[in-house]
Amino acid sequence: MVEANDVMEISESNYLDSYGNRRKHLLDLDSISEADIDALLVQTEAMREVLKRDIKKVPTLRGRVIVTLFYESSTRTRISFEEAGKILSADVINMGASGSSVDKGESLLNTGLTLQAMGVDIIVIRHPHSGAPNFLAKHLPDVSVINAGDGLHAHPTQALLDLYTIKSKVGSLDGIKIVIVGDVLHSRVARSAIWGFSKMGANVTLSGPNTLIPLGLVRDNASGVSGDSGILPKVITEPNLDIAMEGADVVMALRLQSERQNAGYVPTLREYIRRWQVTEQRLNKASPNVLVMHPGPMNEGVEISTDVAHGRRSIIEEQVTNGVALRMAVLYQMATGVNPSLAQED
Amino acid sequence: MVEANDVMEISESNYLDSYGNRRKHLLDLDSISEADIDALLVQTEAMREVLKRDIKKVPTLRGRVIVTLFYESSTRTRISFEEAGKILSADVINMGASGSSVDKGESLLNTGLTLQAMGVDIIVIRHPHSGAPNFLAKHLPDVSVINAGDGLHAHPTQALLDLYTIKSKVGSLDGIKIVIVGDVLHSRVARSAIWGFSKMGANVTLSGPNTLIPLGLVRDNASGVSGDSGILPKVITEPNLDIAMEGADVVMALRLQSERQNAGYVPTLREYIRRWQVTEQRLNKASPNVLVMHPGPMNEGVEISTDVAHGRRSIIEEQVTNGVALRMAVLYQMATGVNPSLAQED
Amino acid sequence: MVEANDVMEISESNYLDSYGNRRKHLLDLDSISEADIDALLVQTEAMREVLKRDIKKVPTLRGRVIVTLFYESSTRTRISFEEAGKILSADVINMGASGSSVDKGESLLNTGLTLQAMGVDIIVIRHPHSGAPNFLAKHLPDVSVINAGDGLHAHPTQALLDLYTIKSKVGSLDGIKIVIVGDVLHSRVARSAIWGFSKMGANVTLSGPNTLIPLGLVRDNASGVSGDSGILPKVITEPNLDIAMEGADVVMALRLQSERQNAGYVPTLREYIRRWQVTEQRLNKASPNVLVMHPGPMNEGVEISTDVAHGRRSIIEEQVTNGVALRMAVLYQMATGVNPSLAQED
Repeated sequence: MVEANDVMEISESNYLDSYGNRRKHLLDLDSISEADIDALLVQTEAMREVLKRDIKKVPTLRGRVIVTLFYESSTRTRISFEEAGKILSADVINMGASGSSVDKGESLLNTGLTLQAMGVDIIVIRHPHSGAPNFLAKHLPDVSVINAGDGLHAHPTQALLDLYTIKSKVGSLDGIKIVIVGDVLHSRVARSAIWGFSKMGANVTLSGPNTLIPLGLVRDNASGVSGDSGILPKVITEPNLDIAMEGADVVMALRLQSERQNAGYVPTLREYIRRWQVTEQRLNKASPNVLVMHPGPMNEGVEISTDVAHGRRSIIEEQVTNGVALRMAVLYQMATGVNPSLAQED
Repeated sequence: MVEANDVMEISESNYLDSYGNRRKHLLDLDSISEADIDALLVQTEAMREVLKRDIKKVPTLRGRVIVTLFYESSTRTRISFEEAGKILSADVINMGASGSSVDKGESLLNTGLTLQAMGVDIIVIRHPHSGAPNFLAKHLPDVSVINAGDGLHAHPTQALLDLYTIKSKVGSLDGIKIVIVGDVLHSRVARSAIWGFSKMGANVTLSGPNTLIPLGLVRDNASGVSGDSGILPKVITEPNLDIAMEGADVVMALRLQSERQNAGYVPTLREYIRRWQVTEQRLNKASPNVLVMHPGPMNEGVEISTDVAHGRRSIIEEQVTNGVALRMAVLYQMATGVNPSLAQED
Repeated sequence: MVEANDVMEISESNYLDSYGNRRKHLLDLDSISEADIDALLVQTEAMREVLKRDIKKVPTLRGRVIVTLFYESSTRTRISFEEAGKILSADVINMGASGSSVDKGESLLNTGLTLQAMGVDIIVIRHPHSGAPNFLAKHLPDVSVINAGDGLHAHPTQALLDLYTIKSKVGSLDGIKIVIVGDVLHSRVARSAIWGFSKMGANVTLSGPNTLIPLGLVRDNASGVSGDSGILPKVITEPNLDIAMEGADVVMALRLQSERQNAGYVPTLREYIRRWQVTEQRLNKASPNVLVMHPGPMNEGVEISTDVAHGRRSIIEEQVTNGVALRMAVLYQMATGVNPSLAQED
């Protein structure tokens, strides 16, 4: 079980810059520029076209080796990366934590050095410790590292696919209202999304039990620092979901993990559902064209009602489709070493 | 442990027909026509030729994505599908139950919708609950679903490879005698095979302890309904294997799972072996050219003697080879959307 | 836990010879000639060139099917083979012990026969029982078997990559001094390396606690048989590492598994570290250009100090790189059926 104090030191340095000439990494959204994000989203659009074809195959990454190094279980993220890599003709090798040297206590550094020595071009890593991808990126000059979720820190490809999905629906995030509901505290998805949404100009409202909203964000915001510095996210909190929902353009429900209840974060499941479930009734308070998102996997009937999950406002399946396209774009940019910012200047 | 009451409702509708224009499924043998089966077997013959080549590779399914979604462990079936897909140049992604969102309690429907949203073309599913593949097929209009074994219901590719193997040896199943020995009750392989063999005109005799022969089939048969309707299988039972064996053209031994003994289905292992093991001595009562089959994996020395398993009458390894070819044919027909019946009319 | 008495009977026959016309195997180093080894090393050189390319892909093994059949967990070996196979364009299918028929108690023979019947060209097997690969090779005339580590017996591709790595650094092994430190008794890596190093003319010194040095080798050596027969390895033992290290050209540290300490093989970890850890200080007694090797995964701070592991004398990462190239060479020679000795005579 990962808790907030499992956080490894995360370097402030931007590996995109420091190793930019040789290798690029995607570690979090804090450290990449708006221009870089825009370039990725443009690339994603092109990849969506490939995905729609009957023959979903392009030779772009032929002869490149991608390892998915997952220290936590996952379906959609691993498979999404695996499919993205294979459609681009890369060789994709899966390496789970069990059945590997990890069992024998090999250090993350030595696992990384071994993969680098094998000539692996890209490591897609999911790790329970925040900062593990940064650590690898710092020590592996010849490998591109993509963070597929680290501890409570970040899940940048999820945030980017969310950005892409919203942009494809509403054109621009500038000034729109996005409500994120639920367990923000333990959600690396939320953490990355908040950075991304704020950076692209959206107003973010967090709603949920006070025990599940990170105090740091609230205080920063209360002090008025956020939004001015361009670094801290532009975010407010509103525990009452009915109020938070007013005029929302996007509502993103987060997964409530059952262990949170046992740990005392929520009073009772019934109480949680009553106050913070995203329902059709609550959506009526939002903008008429409100979009409903969820990073998956869903607990239907807990943080989101089944009606809403599969209803007309849900763009949850589009998130999944865009996830493959976005990961194709990320893999492409990592492997080809094209700096998105530079590419844009052509 | 799957028992007979774990059966989900299985729709009677034939998804081959209802979604025929866009996607096809292989869910069981009950719902596909003789003509469709014949077309698959003709295709299998062509695929066997590919398998014999030194370079086992054709570009047929390049750019198609196949996911093997296995909620139960399996070697030969998963690997057989994986190899079949790869030889056809498809991208094959394995998704086991452990290490996936299944662990997090995601519903089968949402897993299926996610894979569909990812652009997956074919899901090959094995599931402990009967009807799970039908359920997926019903809800995923853009994916072809192939049943790789569901609960006690069906295992159609195994039955089809058995049909192919017998046909390739004896020319036609019409009027031949096939004895199926052992745990028919818990065998989806037997259930599918009975349908297939009956439909192609064979006379099927079931032998084994009364506790392991499904009463439904016996009663239907006793009432004389079976064989007339064209839907119910043409099958008789004969608990005494020595009698059942007389004049048999094919003998198929079924795996006796050790948990059956513990659950009281068989008196003692010694008793079971004495009465129902397929031995050389018993085979002498069958037709001189009798063929011995087993769906695998075998418990040698239990339901089949080692002599017989690896003897001159055994076509068990041919079943395995044909299994790859048959699955290539099935994947090909699912992915290309060619309706076998129509294709035959060309 | 594998102990020395888990050894299956290992046939003395050389499968390279007996099945040479149809299939070749790589089972151990004892049974292949110096010429064969040399041919493999030459091929490895060519494969290293492929590995250095930006587009690491050649069509050599297109349409060949390789199964990695691992009954023990492993990272680097399985991934190294998988990557090697994929770079050569083979179809690689992973089959672990869990989640497979192995769970259902299928015999190794029947698993092998099944894979052969599926048309698999190469089985890469790791198995806890010594001799398992030999057993498979004997019974599968149409499959090439590569031993990826069997019990306490052998790990020939590791030994070959070590040979290649040393040769690439020092030109020839003839007359050089190689010290192998640590748990030789339980190390199939050491066992294979000793054969390989001796055969190529190196002088091998084993160092470590007496409880971890195999008595057989010592006695053979003391009797003067070793080195003369050309079959038994040319090896001496020197428990005192400081003495053993004098003038060494290569030092190979072996992994100390924590269970050895519990089983009473070593007095205390502290004692082991004090006497047998490979440290910078000890390396000063060796040749000035001494090379440090480790088969991985390392227990840094136990059998090797972190300084040495990542220091200027370490060629541990080169071992890993060469491992991929060597496995490409082995897969190539197995699959193409070119006898290395014959190929050399062209």
